[in-house]
Amino acid sequence: MRTEYAHNGKLVTFEGCEGVGKSTQINLLAEYFESRGIDALFTREPGGTEVGERVRALLKDESLDMCPETELLLFEAARSENTRKIIIPALQAGKIVVVDRYIDSTTAYQSFGRGLERSEVDMLNAYATGEVRIDLTVFLDAPPFANTRRSAADRMELAGMDFHDRVYAGYKEIGEGEERFAFIRTMADKHKTAEAIIAALKSYGIIG
Amino acid sequence: MRTEYAHNGKLVTFEGCEGVGKSTQINLLAEYFESRGIDALFTREPGGTEVGERVRALLKDESLDMCPETELLLFEAARSENTRKIIIPALQAGKIVVVDRYIDSTTAYQSFGRGLERSEVDMLNAYATGEVRIDLTVFLDAPPFANTRRSAADRMELAGMDFHDRVYAGYKEIGEGEERFAFIRTMADKHKTAEAIIAALKSYGIIG
Repeated sequence: MRTEYAHNGKLVTFEGCEGVGKSTQINLLAEYFESRGIDALFTREPGGTEVGERVRALLKDESLDMCPETELLLFEAARSENTRKIIIPALQAGKIVVVDRYIDSTTAYQSFGRGLERSEVDMLNAYATGEVRIDLTVFLDAPPFANTRRSAADRMELAGMDFHDRVYAGYKEIGEGEERFAFIRTMADKHKTAEAIIAALKSYGIIG
Repeated sequence: MRTEYAHNGKLVTFEGCEGVGKSTQINLLAEYFESRGIDALFTREPGGTEVGERVRALLKDESLDMCPETELLLFEAARSENTRKIIIPALQAGKIVVVDRYIDSTTAYQSFGRGLERSEVDMLNAYATGEVRIDLTVFLDAPPFANTRRSAADRMELAGMDFHDRVYAGYKEIGEGEERFAFIRTMADKHKTAEAIIAALKSYGIIG
Protein backbone atom coordinates (compact mmCIF):
# COMPACT_ATOMS: atom_id res chain seq x y z
CA MET A 1 0.00 0.00 0.00
CA ARG A 2 1.31 3.43 -0.88
CA THR A 3 1.96 5.66 2.06
CA GLU A 4 -0.33 8.41 0.73
CA TYR A 5 -3.20 5.97 1.21
CA ALA A 6 -2.62 5.27 4.92
CA HIS A 7 -5.92 4.90 6.76
CA ASN A 8 -7.74 3.36 9.74
CA GLY A 9 -10.63 1.85 7.80
CA LYS A 10 -11.26 -1.73 6.75
CA LEU A 11 -11.67 -2.89 3.20
CA VAL A 12 -13.86 -5.93 2.56
CA THR A 13 -14.49 -7.36 -0.89
CA PHE A 14 -17.14 -9.83 -1.99
CA GLU A 15 -16.29 -12.29 -4.71
CA GLY A 16 -17.90 -15.28 -6.33
CA CYS A 17 -19.31 -16.71 -9.53
CA GLU A 18 -22.55 -15.70 -11.22
CA GLY A 19 -25.73 -16.70 -9.46
CA VAL A 20 -24.27 -17.75 -6.10
CA GLY A 21 -26.23 -15.19 -4.09
CA LYS A 22 -23.66 -12.44 -3.68
CA SER A 23 -26.14 -9.55 -3.88
CA THR A 24 -28.43 -11.25 -1.39
CA GLN A 25 -25.59 -11.66 1.09
CA ILE A 26 -24.37 -8.10 0.64
CA ASN A 27 -27.89 -6.83 1.34
CA LEU A 28 -28.12 -8.98 4.47
CA LEU A 29 -24.77 -7.61 5.66
CA ALA A 30 -25.95 -4.05 5.06
CA GLU A 31 -29.04 -4.77 7.19
CA TYR A 32 -26.85 -6.23 9.93
CA PHE A 33 -24.55 -3.18 9.92
CA GLU A 34 -27.55 -0.87 10.02
CA SER A 35 -29.12 -2.73 12.96
CA ARG A 36 -25.83 -2.38 14.87
CA GLY A 37 -25.18 1.22 13.88
CA ILE A 38 -21.93 0.30 12.11
CA ASP A 39 -20.81 3.02 9.68
CA ALA A 40 -20.03 1.37 6.38
CA LEU A 41 -19.87 2.33 2.73
CA PHE A 42 -21.11 -0.15 0.13
CA THR A 43 -19.90 0.28 -3.39
CA ARG A 44 -19.52 -1.56 -6.65
CA GLU A 45 -17.64 -0.56 -9.72
CA PRO A 46 -17.84 1.86 -11.37
CA GLY A 47 -18.91 3.24 -8.01
CA GLY A 48 -20.79 6.33 -8.99
CA THR A 49 -17.94 8.41 -10.35
CA GLU A 50 -18.84 10.14 -13.58
CA VAL A 51 -15.75 8.83 -15.34
CA GLY A 52 -16.62 5.35 -14.13
CA GLU A 53 -20.19 5.58 -15.40
CA ARG A 54 -19.01 6.65 -18.81
CA VAL A 55 -16.41 3.90 -18.97
CA ARG A 56 -19.07 1.41 -17.90
CA ALA A 57 -21.33 2.55 -20.74
CA LEU A 58 -18.46 1.83 -23.13
CA LEU A 59 -17.84 -1.62 -21.65
CA LYS A 60 -21.54 -2.51 -21.80
CA ASP A 61 -21.98 -1.39 -25.41
CA GLU A 62 -22.14 -4.70 -27.26
CA SER A 63 -21.95 -2.98 -30.63
CA LEU A 64 -18.28 -2.24 -29.89
CA ASP A 65 -15.87 -4.99 -30.87
CA MET A 66 -13.04 -4.44 -28.40
CA CYS A 67 -9.70 -6.21 -27.84
CA PRO A 68 -9.48 -7.99 -24.46
CA GLU A 69 -6.44 -5.89 -23.51
CA THR A 70 -8.39 -2.69 -24.18
CA GLU A 71 -11.31 -4.00 -22.14
CA LEU A 72 -8.96 -4.76 -19.24
CA LEU A 73 -7.45 -1.26 -19.37
CA LEU A 74 -10.94 0.28 -19.31
CA PHE A 75 -11.98 -1.82 -16.32
CA GLU A 76 -8.84 -0.68 -14.54
CA ALA A 77 -9.48 2.97 -15.41
CA ALA A 78 -12.92 2.76 -13.79
CA ARG A 79 -11.35 0.98 -10.81
CA SER A 80 -8.65 3.62 -10.45
CA GLU A 81 -11.24 6.37 -10.26
CA ASN A 82 -13.55 4.47 -7.88
CA THR A 83 -10.63 3.58 -5.62
CA ARG A 84 -9.13 7.06 -5.42
CA LYS A 85 -12.37 9.06 -5.33
CA ILE A 86 -14.70 6.82 -3.29
CA ILE A 87 -12.99 3.92 -1.53
CA ILE A 88 -9.81 5.51 -0.17
CA PRO A 89 -11.52 8.67 1.18
CA ALA A 90 -14.04 6.44 3.02
CA LEU A 91 -11.21 4.30 4.44
CA GLN A 92 -9.43 7.46 5.50
CA ALA A 93 -12.61 8.49 7.31
CA GLY A 94 -12.27 5.24 9.26
CA LYS A 95 -15.17 3.44 7.63
CA ILE A 96 -15.67 -0.17 6.71
CA VAL A 97 -15.87 -0.26 2.93
CA VAL A 98 -17.60 -3.21 1.27
CA VAL A 99 -16.98 -3.63 -2.44
CA ASP A 100 -19.07 -5.90 -4.62
CA ARG A 101 -16.38 -7.42 -6.89
CA TYR A 102 -12.88 -5.96 -7.00
CA ILE A 103 -9.45 -7.08 -8.19
CA ASP A 104 -10.06 -10.82 -7.82
CA SER A 105 -12.99 -10.64 -10.24
CA THR A 106 -10.66 -9.20 -12.84
CA THR A 107 -8.08 -11.90 -12.22
CA ALA A 108 -10.69 -14.67 -12.27
CA TYR A 109 -12.65 -13.46 -15.30
CA GLN A 110 -10.02 -11.80 -17.49
CA SER A 111 -7.09 -14.06 -16.73
CA PHE A 112 -8.48 -17.51 -15.82
CA GLY A 113 -11.66 -16.99 -17.88
CA ARG A 114 -10.41 -15.17 -20.96
CA GLY A 115 -6.78 -16.15 -20.97
CA LEU A 116 -4.95 -12.87 -20.39
CA GLU A 117 -1.59 -13.24 -18.67
CA ARG A 118 -1.97 -13.50 -14.89
CA SER A 119 1.16 -11.45 -14.16
CA GLU A 120 -0.10 -8.60 -16.35
CA VAL A 121 -3.55 -8.60 -14.78
CA ASP A 122 -1.91 -8.58 -11.33
CA MET A 123 0.24 -5.63 -12.33
CA LEU A 124 -2.71 -3.63 -13.67
CA ASN A 125 -4.79 -4.44 -10.59
CA ALA A 126 -1.96 -3.16 -8.42
CA TYR A 127 -1.64 0.02 -10.46
CA ALA A 128 -5.36 0.76 -10.53
CA THR A 129 -5.78 0.33 -6.79
CA GLY A 130 -2.55 1.96 -5.68
CA GLU A 131 -2.01 -1.38 -3.91
CA VAL A 132 -4.57 -0.50 -1.26
CA ARG A 133 -4.68 -3.40 1.21
CA ILE A 134 -7.77 -5.62 1.26
CA ASP A 135 -8.48 -6.77 4.83
CA LEU A 136 -10.93 -9.52 3.98
CA THR A 137 -12.27 -11.12 0.82
CA VAL A 138 -15.53 -12.96 1.35
CA PHE A 139 -15.50 -15.62 -1.34
CA LEU A 140 -18.88 -17.29 -1.75
CA ASP A 141 -17.61 -20.72 -2.56
CA ALA A 142 -20.14 -22.43 -4.81
CA PRO A 143 -20.10 -23.48 -8.44
CA PRO A 144 -21.36 -20.92 -10.94
CA PHE A 145 -25.15 -20.59 -11.03
CA ALA A 146 -25.36 -22.64 -7.83
CA ASN A 147 -28.76 -21.15 -7.08
CA THR A 148 -30.23 -21.90 -10.46
CA ARG A 149 -28.24 -24.89 -11.61
CA ARG A 150 -30.81 -27.58 -11.01
CA SER A 151 -33.64 -25.74 -12.71
CA ALA A 152 -31.36 -24.75 -15.52
CA ALA A 153 -29.82 -28.17 -16.06
CA ASP A 154 -30.49 -28.04 -19.77
CA ARG A 155 -28.64 -24.74 -20.08
CA MET A 156 -25.52 -26.43 -18.70
CA GLU A 157 -24.63 -27.67 -22.15
CA LEU A 158 -24.64 -24.19 -23.56
CA ALA A 159 -21.39 -22.66 -24.63
CA GLY A 160 -20.15 -20.45 -21.83
CA MET A 161 -20.33 -22.94 -19.01
CA ASP A 162 -16.69 -23.84 -19.56
CA PHE A 163 -15.83 -20.19 -19.14
CA HIS A 164 -17.62 -19.95 -15.80
CA ASP A 165 -16.06 -23.19 -14.62
CA ARG A 166 -12.60 -21.76 -15.40
CA VAL A 167 -13.52 -18.64 -13.43
CA TYR A 168 -14.54 -20.76 -10.43
CA ALA A 169 -11.32 -22.79 -10.56
CA GLY A 170 -9.43 -19.51 -10.90
CA TYR A 171 -11.01 -18.05 -7.79
CA LYS A 172 -9.99 -21.12 -5.81
CA GLU A 173 -6.42 -20.88 -7.04
CA ILE A 174 -6.22 -17.17 -6.19
CA GLY A 175 -7.75 -17.72 -2.75
CA GLU A 176 -5.44 -20.55 -1.79
CA GLY A 177 -2.50 -18.17 -1.90
CA GLU A 178 -4.14 -15.33 0.01
CA GLU A 179 -4.65 -15.22 3.75
CA ARG A 180 -7.27 -12.50 3.30
CA PHE A 181 -9.61 -14.99 1.56
CA ALA A 182 -12.42 -16.48 3.62
CA PHE A 183 -14.00 -19.38 1.74
CA ILE A 184 -17.67 -19.33 2.69
CA ARG A 185 -19.72 -22.33 1.54
CA THR A 186 -23.16 -21.14 0.55
CA MET A 187 -26.00 -22.92 2.31
CA ALA A 188 -29.61 -23.52 1.33
CA ASP A 189 -30.71 -21.19 4.14
CA LYS A 190 -29.40 -17.74 3.23
CA HIS A 191 -29.44 -16.69 6.88
CA LYS A 192 -27.00 -19.49 7.75
CA THR A 193 -24.65 -18.21 5.06
CA ALA A 194 -25.04 -14.68 6.45
CA GLU A 195 -24.07 -15.94 9.91
CA ALA A 196 -20.94 -17.54 8.50
CA ILE A 197 -20.03 -14.25 6.82
CA ILE A 198 -20.47 -12.29 10.05
CA ALA A 199 -18.34 -14.85 11.88
CA ALA A 200 -15.63 -14.29 9.26
CA LEU A 201 -15.82 -10.51 9.69
CA LYS A 202 -15.32 -11.02 13.43
CA SER A 203 -12.44 -13.43 13.09
CA TYR A 204 -10.67 -11.07 10.64
CA GLY A 205 -11.12 -8.17 13.08
CA ILE A 206 -13.38 -6.16 10.78
CA ILE A 207 -16.07 -5.84 13.45
CA GLY A 208 -15.98 -6.46 17.18
CA MET B 1 7.69 -7.75 -29.25
CA ARG B 2 5.20 -10.55 -28.86
CA THR B 3 5.49 -13.31 -31.41
CA GLU B 4 1.86 -12.94 -32.49
CA TYR B 5 2.77 -9.46 -33.77
CA ALA B 6 5.57 -10.56 -36.10
CA HIS B 7 5.57 -8.46 -39.27
CA ASN B 8 7.63 -7.06 -42.15
CA GLY B 9 6.54 -3.45 -41.82
CA LYS B 10 8.32 -0.47 -40.31
CA LEU B 11 7.02 1.58 -37.44
CA VAL B 12 8.03 5.25 -37.28
CA THR B 13 6.89 7.59 -34.54
CA PHE B 14 7.05 11.39 -34.47
CA GLU B 15 7.67 13.08 -31.15
CA GLY B 16 8.32 16.58 -29.92
CA CYS B 17 7.01 19.42 -27.81
CA GLU B 18 4.06 21.68 -28.60
CA GLY B 19 4.53 24.09 -31.47
CA VAL B 20 7.75 22.67 -32.93
CA GLY B 21 6.22 21.94 -36.33
CA LYS B 22 5.45 18.24 -36.02
CA SER B 23 2.27 18.33 -38.10
CA THR B 24 3.99 20.31 -40.83
CA GLN B 25 6.79 17.76 -41.04
CA ILE B 26 4.41 14.81 -41.05
CA ASN B 27 2.51 16.39 -43.93
CA LEU B 28 5.73 16.97 -45.85
CA LEU B 29 6.71 13.34 -45.30
CA ALA B 30 3.31 12.17 -46.54
CA GLU B 31 3.83 14.25 -49.71
CA TYR B 32 7.27 12.74 -50.18
CA PHE B 33 5.94 9.19 -49.78
CA GLU B 34 3.14 9.92 -52.22
CA SER B 35 5.50 11.35 -54.82
CA ARG B 36 7.61 8.18 -54.58
CA GLY B 37 4.69 5.76 -54.51
CA ILE B 38 5.64 4.49 -51.04
CA ASP B 39 2.76 2.71 -49.32
CA ALA B 40 2.43 4.13 -45.83
CA LEU B 41 -0.25 4.49 -43.20
CA PHE B 42 -0.39 7.70 -41.15
CA THR B 43 -2.19 7.57 -37.85
CA ARG B 44 -2.52 9.38 -34.59
CA GLU B 45 -4.24 8.28 -31.46
CA PRO B 46 -7.02 7.42 -31.02
CA GLY B 47 -6.57 6.36 -34.62
CA GLY B 48 -10.11 6.14 -35.81
CA THR B 49 -11.28 3.18 -33.76
CA GLU B 50 -14.70 3.74 -32.27
CA VAL B 51 -13.51 2.80 -28.78
CA GLY B 52 -10.62 5.23 -29.19
CA GLU B 53 -12.91 8.07 -30.28
CA ARG B 54 -15.13 7.55 -27.28
CA VAL B 55 -12.20 7.39 -24.89
CA ARG B 56 -10.82 10.55 -26.49
CA ALA B 57 -14.12 12.34 -25.87
CA LEU B 58 -13.80 11.39 -22.21
CA LEU B 59 -10.21 12.63 -22.00
CA LYS B 60 -11.12 15.92 -23.70
CA ASP B 61 -14.10 16.62 -21.45
CA GLU B 62 -12.78 19.31 -19.15
CA SER B 63 -15.84 19.12 -16.93
CA LEU B 64 -14.52 15.77 -15.66
CA ASP B 65 -12.12 15.97 -12.76
CA MET B 66 -10.04 12.86 -13.26
CA CYS B 67 -7.14 11.32 -11.30
CA PRO B 68 -3.86 11.26 -13.27
CA GLU B 69 -3.67 7.48 -12.92
CA THR B 70 -7.15 7.13 -14.43
CA GLU B 71 -6.19 9.46 -17.26
CA LEU B 72 -3.10 7.37 -17.97
CA LEU B 73 -5.14 4.13 -18.05
CA LEU B 74 -7.60 5.73 -20.50
CA PHE B 75 -4.80 6.91 -22.80
CA GLU B 76 -3.41 3.39 -22.75
CA ALA B 77 -6.82 1.86 -23.49
CA ALA B 78 -7.11 4.03 -26.62
CA ARG B 79 -3.53 3.10 -27.55
CA SER B 80 -4.19 -0.61 -27.08
CA GLU B 81 -7.11 -0.46 -29.48
CA ASN B 82 -5.29 1.68 -32.07
CA THR B 83 -2.22 -0.57 -31.92
CA ARG B 84 -4.07 -3.87 -32.26
CA LYS B 85 -6.75 -2.77 -34.73
CA ILE B 86 -4.90 -0.28 -36.95
CA ILE B 87 -1.12 -0.26 -36.50
CA ILE B 88 -0.27 -3.95 -36.24
CA PRO B 89 -2.49 -5.05 -39.17
CA ALA B 90 -0.83 -2.38 -41.34
CA LEU B 91 2.64 -3.53 -40.26
CA GLN B 92 1.63 -7.12 -41.01
CA ALA B 93 0.63 -5.96 -44.48
CA GLY B 94 4.25 -4.79 -44.85
CA LYS B 95 3.50 -1.07 -44.70
CA ILE B 96 5.43 1.79 -43.20
CA VAL B 97 3.30 3.11 -40.36
CA VAL B 98 3.86 6.68 -39.18
CA VAL B 99 2.33 7.58 -35.82
CA ASP B 100 1.96 11.15 -34.64
CA ARG B 101 2.85 10.78 -30.94
CA TYR B 102 3.09 7.36 -29.31
CA ILE B 103 4.58 5.90 -26.13
CA ASP B 104 7.27 8.54 -25.68
CA SER B 105 4.65 11.29 -25.49
CA THR B 106 3.06 9.46 -22.59
CA THR B 107 6.39 9.07 -20.83
CA ALA B 108 7.37 12.70 -21.44
CA TYR B 109 4.02 14.28 -20.55
CA GLN B 110 2.61 11.97 -17.86
CA SER B 111 5.84 11.01 -16.15
CA PHE B 112 8.31 13.87 -16.61
CA GLY B 113 5.55 16.49 -16.95
CA ARG B 114 2.99 15.35 -14.42
CA GLY B 115 5.13 13.31 -12.09
CA LEU B 116 3.77 9.78 -12.47
CA GLU B 117 6.31 7.04 -11.80
CA ARG B 118 8.45 6.37 -14.87
CA SER B 119 8.58 2.61 -14.28
CA GLU B 120 4.78 2.42 -14.13
CA VAL B 121 4.31 4.48 -17.28
CA ASP B 122 6.87 2.26 -19.04
CA MET B 123 5.00 -0.84 -17.91
CA LEU B 124 1.64 0.47 -19.11
CA ASN B 125 3.13 1.59 -22.43
CA ALA B 126 4.53 -1.92 -22.90
CA TYR B 127 1.18 -3.50 -22.07
CA ALA B 128 -0.86 -1.22 -24.32
CA THR B 129 1.38 -1.75 -27.35
CA GLY B 130 2.09 -5.43 -26.86
CA GLU B 131 5.72 -4.30 -26.96
CA VAL B 132 5.57 -3.75 -30.71
CA ARG B 133 9.02 -2.61 -31.86
CA ILE B 134 9.47 0.99 -32.97
CA ASP B 135 12.01 1.16 -35.79
CA LEU B 136 12.59 4.90 -35.69
CA THR B 137 11.48 7.80 -33.54
CA VAL B 138 11.83 11.17 -35.23
CA PHE B 139 12.30 13.57 -32.36
CA LEU B 140 11.95 17.19 -33.43
CA ASP B 141 14.50 18.62 -31.09
CA ALA B 142 13.50 22.16 -30.25
CA PRO B 143 12.27 23.87 -27.11
CA PRO B 144 8.50 23.95 -26.62
CA PHE B 145 6.73 26.52 -28.78
CA ALA B 146 9.93 26.98 -30.77
CA ASN B 147 7.94 28.34 -33.70
CA THR B 148 6.06 30.90 -31.65
CA ARG B 149 8.42 31.59 -28.79
CA ARG B 150 9.78 34.94 -29.88
CA SER B 151 6.39 36.44 -30.62
CA ALA B 152 5.01 34.95 -27.45
CA ALA B 153 7.86 36.05 -25.20
CA ASP B 154 5.49 37.61 -22.70
CA ARG B 155 3.56 34.36 -22.38
CA MET B 156 6.75 32.66 -21.20
CA GLU B 157 6.07 33.73 -17.66
CA LEU B 158 2.69 32.08 -17.65
CA ALA B 159 2.19 29.07 -15.49
CA GLY B 160 2.54 25.98 -17.63
CA MET B 161 5.87 26.83 -19.20
CA ASP B 162 7.65 24.88 -16.47
CA PHE B 163 5.57 21.88 -17.39
CA HIS B 164 6.54 22.07 -21.05
CA ASP B 165 10.19 22.57 -20.14
CA ARG B 166 10.07 19.38 -18.02
CA VAL B 167 8.51 17.56 -20.97
CA TYR B 168 11.34 18.72 -23.25
CA ALA B 169 14.01 17.67 -20.76
CA GLY B 170 12.16 14.37 -20.39
CA TYR B 171 12.22 13.69 -24.11
CA LYS B 172 15.97 14.25 -24.17
CA GLU B 173 16.49 11.85 -21.29
CA ILE B 174 14.33 9.17 -22.94
CA GLY B 175 16.06 9.62 -26.27
CA GLU B 176 19.57 9.38 -24.93
CA GLY B 177 18.89 5.81 -23.85
CA GLU B 178 17.25 4.67 -27.10
CA GLU B 179 19.09 3.89 -30.32
CA ARG B 180 15.82 4.26 -32.25
CA PHE B 181 15.76 8.02 -31.49
CA ALA B 182 16.90 10.38 -34.22
CA PHE B 183 17.36 13.87 -32.81
CA ILE B 184 16.40 16.24 -35.61
CA ARG B 185 17.16 19.92 -35.01
CA THR B 186 14.38 21.99 -36.50
CA MET B 187 15.54 24.66 -38.92
CA ALA B 188 14.01 27.94 -40.02
CA ASP B 189 13.44 26.47 -43.50
CA LYS B 190 10.93 23.66 -43.05
CA HIS B 191 12.18 21.97 -46.22
CA LYS B 192 15.66 21.66 -44.71
CA THR B 193 14.16 19.96 -41.69
CA ALA B 194 12.19 17.65 -44.00
CA GLU B 195 15.42 16.70 -45.78
CA ALA B 196 17.04 15.80 -42.47
CA ILE B 197 14.06 13.60 -41.62
CA ILE B 198 14.26 11.78 -44.94
CA ALA B 199 17.99 11.26 -44.42
CA ALA B 200 17.19 9.71 -41.02
CA LEU B 201 14.59 7.40 -42.59
CA LYS B 202 17.23 6.25 -45.04
CA SER B 203 19.94 5.72 -42.46
CA TYR B 204 17.55 3.71 -40.27
CA GLY B 205 16.62 1.54 -43.26
CA ILE B 206 12.98 2.62 -43.33
CA ILE B 207 13.18 3.62 -47.00
CA GLY B 208 15.77 2.81 -49.66
